[in-house]
Amino acid sequence: MIPLQLIPLPGLPEITPGTTLAPLLIEAARAAGTPLTGGDCLVVTQKVVSKAEGRLVRLDPADPDARRHLIEAESVRVLRRRGDLVISETGHGWVCANAGIDLSNVDEGWAALLPVDADRSARRIRDGVRAGAGVEVAVVISDTFGRPWRHGLVDVAIGVAGLAAVVDLRGTGDDRGRPLQVTEVAIADEVASAAELVMGKARGVPAAIARGLDPDWLREGSSASLRRPSGEDLFR
Amino acid sequence: MIPLQLIPLPGLPEITPGTTLAPLLIEAARAAGTPLTGGDCLVVTQKVVSKAEGRLVRLDPADPDARRHLIEAESVRVLRRRGDLVISETGHGWVCANAGIDLSNVDEGWAALLPVDADRSARRIRDGVRAGAGVEVAVVISDTFGRPWRHGLVDVAIGVAGLAAVVDLRGTGDDRGRPLQVTEVAIADEVASAAELVMGKARGVPAAIARGLDPDWLREGSSASLRRPSGEDLFR
Repeated sequence: MIPLQLIPLPGLPEITPGTTLAPLLIEAARAAGTPLTGGDCLVVTQKVVSKAEGRLVRLDPADPDARRHLIEAESVRVLRRRGDLVISETGHGWVCANAGIDLSNVDEGWAALLPVDADRSARRIRDGVRAGAGVEVAVVISDTFGRPWRHGLVDVAIGVAGLAAVVDLRGTGDDRGRPLQVTEVAIADEVASAAELVMGKARGVPAAIARGLDPDWLREGSSASLRRPSGEDLFR
Repeated sequence: MIPLQLIPLPGLPEITPGTTLAPLLIEAARAAGTPLTGGDCLVVTQKVVSKAEGRLVRLDPADPDARRHLIEAESVRVLRRRGDLVISETGHGWVCANAGIDLSNVDEGWAALLPVDADRSARRIRDGVRAGAGVEVAVVISDTFGRPWRHGLVDVAIGVAGLAAVVDLRGTGDDRGRPLQVTEVAIADEVASAAELVMGKARGVPAAIARGLDPDWLREGSSASLRRPSGEDLFR
């Protein structure tokens, strides 16, 4: 069987509003000695996407309420509060801490918001790679989320292009030929988590290649299939 | 930078109560052309561990309440019910669906319970690989969990040996040299998710090698650091 490889892409230059990411990712992959190839999945962290898309807002460090106000502005529903921590649902439908707003790896006095539409961000990178390198890749935009009952953060997908976000194994049967009890696997989230293992939080590596994914998964997908509607939700 | 590889290990024979897993895993890795080497992390699914440890119980298919009784017996606290679905906390402290009891890939009329102590299961495999192949590996026992606000299942770690389950990046600073906002990464869960991508639910591959993890992470760990105590929990 073919192994899956996760290849870190260090060496991206500083990303500023208006930066086009695809050429930088193509070049970073070349510089790493692993040029992009058809069937690769590029995983790009939300942070660089938000910066490139100008999703940066001023946050007055002298105003202790500024952060809270920003979180509330980016939320459609607050689920829980404890001290500085707010668990809320964003306008996109993600339930996460602090509406996904990030203060690390941006300049003091600024905050990075989530992309407006991370599937669109992913498609833009996918299309840019096709135009610039002539190869068809999948793209995952990743972010770092906590979990209610587990310690530690993991990376998940908030945007996808060219990849099924959730793969339904229903009906393929278990090894006894009976229908499987568990069926739908969030492969886009698993790809994001796998990539995080080679990117690290503090090592300044904002992108990675996942090479060797099942070709059946490389079809059009949407991060919408990762969002559980509140009507189905037992904890909202 | 060195890529991370996930290598599936197909070809394990049928596992029955009393099976010693380490020699089978050593042999499966050899047969796959990728013999185990120092620094590898073996990921083994809960299902084969539970079978090997005889964690199988009879479940009368004629009794519609049998499944519910078993779930309640394996739970210390029920969080939510909807139809057949029970979200509960197991005796181990995991919050998951149906107390982690699995009816797929076991014979009709049987159910597989979680291992009594999956860290011990992981250490037993690690020690067996050291004895049988003379190499020091890390081990993750993985299981498939849902998430309250996200569709699709992902694999997580329920047992570890020789691997820090959560890595604290606090204080290492972001790329501006300021302390990071997010700090603790559940790398054992991310390794389990990465491995799932090459194992698949229906392909009968119950183990994989993660090769190329950061050597700093290969130290003694415990799955306890993945369990959020109920006192810290905002959703229990």
